[in-house]
Amino acid sequence: MTVPKTTLFEADDEAEVEAKKPARKKASKSRGASADPASKARDISVAEFFEKNRHMLGFDSPAKALLMAVKEAVDNSLDACEEAGILPEILVEISQVTEKTYRMAVEDNGPGIGDTQIGKIFGQLLYGSKFHKLSQSRGQQGIGISAAGMYGKLTTGKPVVIRSKVKRRKAVEAVLSIDTSKNKAEIHSREEIDWGTKTCGTRIEIEMEATYKKGLRSVDMYLKQTAIANPHLTLTWVDPAGERVVYEANTKEKPNQTVEIKPHPHGVELGRLITMLKETSARSISGFLQEEFCRVGPTVAKKIVDAAGKGLTTKSYPSRIAREEAAALYDAINSTRISSPPTDCIAPIGEELLLLGLKKEIEADFYTTSTRPAAVYRGNPFQVEVGIAFGKPGQGYEMEDTGRIKKKSRSEQVVADLVADADEPARILRFANRVPLLYQQSACAIAKAVVGTNWRSYGISQPKGSLPIAPMALIVHIASVWVPFTSESKEAIASYPEILTEIKRALQECGRKLGIHIRKGKRLQREYQKREYIETYIPHIGIALQEILGLSNTEKDETVEILEGTLHRSRKF
Amino acid sequence: MTVPKTTLFEADDEAEVEAKKPARKKASKSRGASADPASKARDISVAEFFEKNRHMLGFDSPAKALLMAVKEAVDNSLDACEEAGILPEILVEISQVTEKTYRMAVEDNGPGIGDTQIGKIFGQLLYGSKFHKLSQSRGQQGIGISAAGMYGKLTTGKPVVIRSKVKRRKAVEAVLSIDTSKNKAEIHSREEIDWGTKTCGTRIEIEMEATYKKGLRSVDMYLKQTAIANPHLTLTWVDPAGERVVYEANTKEKPNQTVEIKPHPHGVELGRLITMLKETSARSISGFLQEEFCRVGPTVAKKIVDAAGKGLTTKSYPSRIAREEAAALYDAINSTRISSPPTDCIAPIGEELLLLGLKKEIEADFYTTSTRPAAVYRGNPFQVEVGIAFGKPGQGYEMEDTGRIKKKSRSEQVVADLVADADEPARILRFANRVPLLYQQSACAIAKAVVGTNWRSYGISQPKGSLPIAPMALIVHIASVWVPFTSESKEAIASYPEILTEIKRALQECGRKLGIHIRKGKRLQREYQKREYIETYIPHIGIALQEILGLSNTEKDETVEILEGTLHRSRKF
Repeated sequence: MTVPKTTLFEADDEAEVEAKKPARKKASKSRGASADPASKARDISVAEFFEKNRHMLGFDSPAKALLMAVKEAVDNSLDACEEAGILPEILVEISQVTEKTYRMAVEDNGPGIGDTQIGKIFGQLLYGSKFHKLSQSRGQQGIGISAAGMYGKLTTGKPVVIRSKVKRRKAVEAVLSIDTSKNKAEIHSREEIDWGTKTCGTRIEIEMEATYKKGLRSVDMYLKQTAIANPHLTLTWVDPAGERVVYEANTKEKPNQTVEIKPHPHGVELGRLITMLKETSARSISGFLQEEFCRVGPTVAKKIVDAAGKGLTTKSYPSRIAREEAAALYDAINSTRISSPPTDCIAPIGEELLLLGLKKEIEADFYTTSTRPAAVYRGNPFQVEVGIAFGKPGQGYEMEDTGRIKKKSRSEQVVADLVADADEPARILRFANRVPLLYQQSACAIAKAVVGTNWRSYGISQPKGSLPIAPMALIVHIASVWVPFTSESKEAIASYPEILTEIKRALQECGRKLGIHIRKGKRLQREYQKREYIETYIPHIGIALQEILGLSNTEKDETVEILEGTLHRSRKF
Repeated sequence: MTVPKTTLFEADDEAEVEAKKPARKKASKSRGASADPASKARDISVAEFFEKNRHMLGFDSPAKALLMAVKEAVDNSLDACEEAGILPEILVEISQVTEKTYRMAVEDNGPGIGDTQIGKIFGQLLYGSKFHKLSQSRGQQGIGISAAGMYGKLTTGKPVVIRSKVKRRKAVEAVLSIDTSKNKAEIHSREEIDWGTKTCGTRIEIEMEATYKKGLRSVDMYLKQTAIANPHLTLTWVDPAGERVVYEANTKEKPNQTVEIKPHPHGVELGRLITMLKETSARSISGFLQEEFCRVGPTVAKKIVDAAGKGLTTKSYPSRIAREEAAALYDAINSTRISSPPTDCIAPIGEELLLLGLKKEIEADFYTTSTRPAAVYRGNPFQVEVGIAFGKPGQGYEMEDTGRIKKKSRSEQVVADLVADADEPARILRFANRVPLLYQQSACAIAKAVVGTNWRSYGISQPKGSLPIAPMALIVHIASVWVPFTSESKEAIASYPEILTEIKRALQECGRKLGIHIRKGKRLQREYQKREYIETYIPHIGIALQEILGLSNTEKDETVEILEGTLHRSRKF
């Protein structure tokens, strides 16, 4: 579109025109001190709030938009498949629509979504099945995918297209968008369609303003890391250039089914306890404690009630308990020893599969992994796993079968490297409930734990208060029934002390194994250099011996060969 | 409360008991692939959401709780006073209730709040008068003060007590708390009371679990900085020890009344434009553009419509415009030159008052301030001010009237220093719409701009990619009709490029003035050392002259005095 040049320089007369307009909203300023400043106050819909503050959801730049949308859609697909006991097969496609806009499509083989739920799940913020329960899942807020659709609508004006099929029912295609002032889905159309041979699954398409780039914080990287953390996933990825990458599953085994747990008594807060007492259907405190919490049986319940005093008995009626008595009960709960929460609610990737994933997707010299036992923060069980991929091919030394040590040659095929260069800070791959976190690294408990670990003791240089400097990728995974993210965009994990401690311990376990490898590597390197030095002189020794002993040329060559062989066999590691 | 030691070691039998409990919620796991995983989904109230994620609101630790609550209450008081044209007088009191809990009270002389509004303002998240308009105010989300009350209730079970009086009406006292599952206020009691001689104002009391500490991120520091940024405020602060500090107002002038503005056309997004077209009461596009946006008169409106093409005329009916036409209109808006938004909607502190505030509250050797002209990001006007307080008394050199240069002596009274030590990174005091920001510095655009400024060119050392190292406090204030915070806790400003640029420019303006001062200081220091060196020898010269010329002791002393006087007058700066 061309605009005549003159248009670009005027508008001063416009300002004048504006000055003459009636000051519609200035009236309130003259009401004086006695007026009620709140009279203009009104409800703010949560969708309006996040539309205006969409950077809190991660939609703060076109560069990040595609990644956020793909992430939310893939997370939902993986959760749905896992919950239904299906081995997930997911297709991600991105295509360019206009210079500034892209269309993202994510399709899964999940259980599909019932007709009546489609609008709420994709067109309403703060709606979902995962917020009100404690169980390990990728989604937890009921915001993500609707927010992606909202961003698409905001920047292109186009609605979201959903296609879904539940087994033994007809497939449905719905076109919808979110009405932000009401935070409700507006369904533009909904019809039954024929979806070929598909038995069940869901497909979502969103068009949005975005830019597409490769690199460390790209859709490509997110998908690669998702493949590492989800070895049971088969993932097909078609990028805007039409290039197709398939990440095959490393295992046919589904992750352990995680069960939902009830909250642990030591994690509850006084105000929440009072609300629970009011809302419970239990008819005695003892029953209340046993029904609403995990790890409480009749014995512990009685101990808590006895410790509370204030005339409470195990038979007291919960909703009749006053604040003061509840406060005593709260103190009693916290001073009573109660078993740690169960940990079968958590499904780590596992050392073996994590190692397999690392080796398949990251090229390095040395790999090690470590999975910690489950621990608890604020009553929520969680578990930490760490993996290290160390050394770039071409920067290490290896010993051949013959005893010959040689510098490794670097494959020319290594692209989009996940391992840092030798003079760079180690690269950190962060995961929460198997979801890669690509932004806000420095605000995250994982980065803080890496910085707080003493890497020098494993032979790695580390400037004070900084990340270690090494050709290394650190993989850290936290699995929990409730991951405490620092914002709605779920990019960084809050630094609870228990979480920091567990991450550090896992890093130390891996670090010790790495330290052994590094010391060995350094010995190999020194040895290699020494031998190379000696090797230079062996021919001269040959010539000297030839002169002294009067050897023939053949005898000299044989002697040189014997000397070289001896040198290579001289030390073993 | 004492618990028999034996209670603390058992509970294994409990785990067994639990295993026998019916697995209430596990049923869904066996539904198989055809089940609808969304069937358990439900609405999440925004209050529930933030109760569970209260760290997003800044209530993530007892150490921060008091600060956040005081901040929200004081912000509200200041906004209310300014809007009503009242010179604010605010009282902040904190008292300890139990070992772990404190009561915060904030009272103002504002216009008071009407009876019907009290519940909504203090007992409902996302309710307020400031979200839907563009004007400079401290609050903008309608979350803060209700969140503080929610945190109080959650940790102590106690409701919030509000007292409010509107002029010529009876004072009202209301006791309320937030019902998180509904996000509505639950009013426990409400009655008319006698509030002594008070003509109007509001008082809020919240009891909460908290710790109270002095230091850089304390309530004390927040209030001190609030006094700097609000020179028209009279603030009385009573700490838990009963100590009373009064910050008197530096001026009787209220800040400029800021007016509400309409959005600027260049800041609107396509989706928003479509919604606005649908909702407007205007009956033509031309009228729509003029009524809904600032800086658009009939001429600019016509230019936009002409540029859009697609058969649109200035008389086209807004709600009949289809997406494709709206997209053309959107492109046309962005390619048409339109005046910058008006800037009378912004009230900076002003160089003079900022300087006065700095001198009053921060002890330093050198002060300078700079206020930039208003600029625009995403259609929102904003303005940046910077102040620098440099040098600690006792670390600089000054020239007396006699020409004598001396090292400054450090006052013993300097406590809770806002100026960094000479070997520390400069301290940054961040303000947004006159509100001090004490947390998340490194995530904030202000810190990024400070790091991105070349301080070495002003004679200050600065490690690569770090804050400058100097005995210095940097004060940076951003005023805007909409400050883009990175989270609901409003602790850090998002790094829009336009904002970064303006901060850097203001820092550079101050930096240049500081550079002159520092070079002068360095010359003084060198001169001082040179003179001190020469001074050591003057008495010896006196003795030598006495011997050579046969002077009397009096003559010798006179000569020494003359020599010293000459030395001190020898150079001027």
